[in-house]
Amino acid sequence: MIIQTIPDFVRTLNALSGILDKGAASAQARKIDPLVLTQSRLAPDMFALARQVQIACDVAKNGFARLSGVDAPKFEDTETTFEELKARIAKTIDFLHSIKPEQVHGAQDKVVSFPAGPERTLKMKGDAYLTQWMLPNLYFHTVTAYNILRHNGVDVGKLDYLKGADLLP
Amino acid sequence: MIIQTIPDFVRTLNALSGILDKGAASAQARKIDPLVLTQSRLAPDMFALARQVQIACDVAKNGFARLSGVDAPKFEDTETTFEELKARIAKTIDFLHSIKPEQVHGAQDKVVSFPAGPERTLKMKGDAYLTQWMLPNLYFHTVTAYNILRHNGVDVGKLDYLKGADLLP
Repeated sequence: MIIQTIPDFVRTLNALSGILDKGAASAQARKIDPLVLTQSRLAPDMFALARQVQIACDVAKNGFARLSGVDAPKFEDTETTFEELKARIAKTIDFLHSIKPEQVHGAQDKVVSFPAGPERTLKMKGDAYLTQWMLPNLYFHTVTAYNILRHNGVDVGKLDYLKGADLLP
Repeated sequence: MIIQTIPDFVRTLNALSGILDKGAASAQARKIDPLVLTQSRLAPDMFALARQVQIACDVAKNGFARLSGVDAPKFEDTETTFEELKARIAKTIDFLHSIKPEQVHGAQDKVVSFPAGPERTLKMKGDAYLTQWMLPNLYFHTVTAYNILRHNGVDVGKLDYLKGADLLP
């Protein structure tokens, strides 16, 4: 059950990577410094685009590390360009693909502890952590990244976000 | 499997209702016409807050109608106030609660047809439709509603969005 959700994370991270491609192309076409876009935010007290992408990756990578007991790769949080952010997504997807079914076998019943902000540790059962915390957080940061770019005039649409959905002919 | 995801939709719609409460309270405290907030949008070619909430409801209601074969209640899409939007959410949750396990039994294997925009009909297998279309769309419109309010200075935080997650003591 846990292992079956890895494709949802991979599909969404790939969609996010494609959304970043559109951001980079838009910056080039409009002669905007791409860093203006990666540093944009929707409110002064919200994270900028680059941080949204970093966190989307961390939700997936740290979440599956907790569920599987496998150490996640460490990232230095230094990405600023679209290329660097896309590379982080690619490394995250590589990690997700490395998780084997037996490593998350039974993880739905284990108790997972995780930080929520700098001072708080929360606990959830594995299956609830996956569906009520990891997935909503993945979508939160992906959609917020999308919204930041859309707010800045990048021509992204909802099908970019849903890309990879398994449509029948 | 399908029936087990209804609580994810209910929890997220309840969280959205709480986010709208904060929007209404902020409008009152700041002496802003609440309709200014419900008509706000992040980009000229994106839907305003009220429409985002309507669609979040429709994703849930029409999605489970297609999966179950039960007719969904019809809404007139006339909501403009926070109270009206919250009532639509409440009616949607009532419909979700009315779905019985036997009505979606086997729905993971059935082929679901659904409109994507005014001119296109897509098809997916039930389980893919649920996890790759309905859930990402529910989160998309909920997060966009959140982002519209946050962009307009409403004091919402991610825990408002994740509210109802089943934390252990």
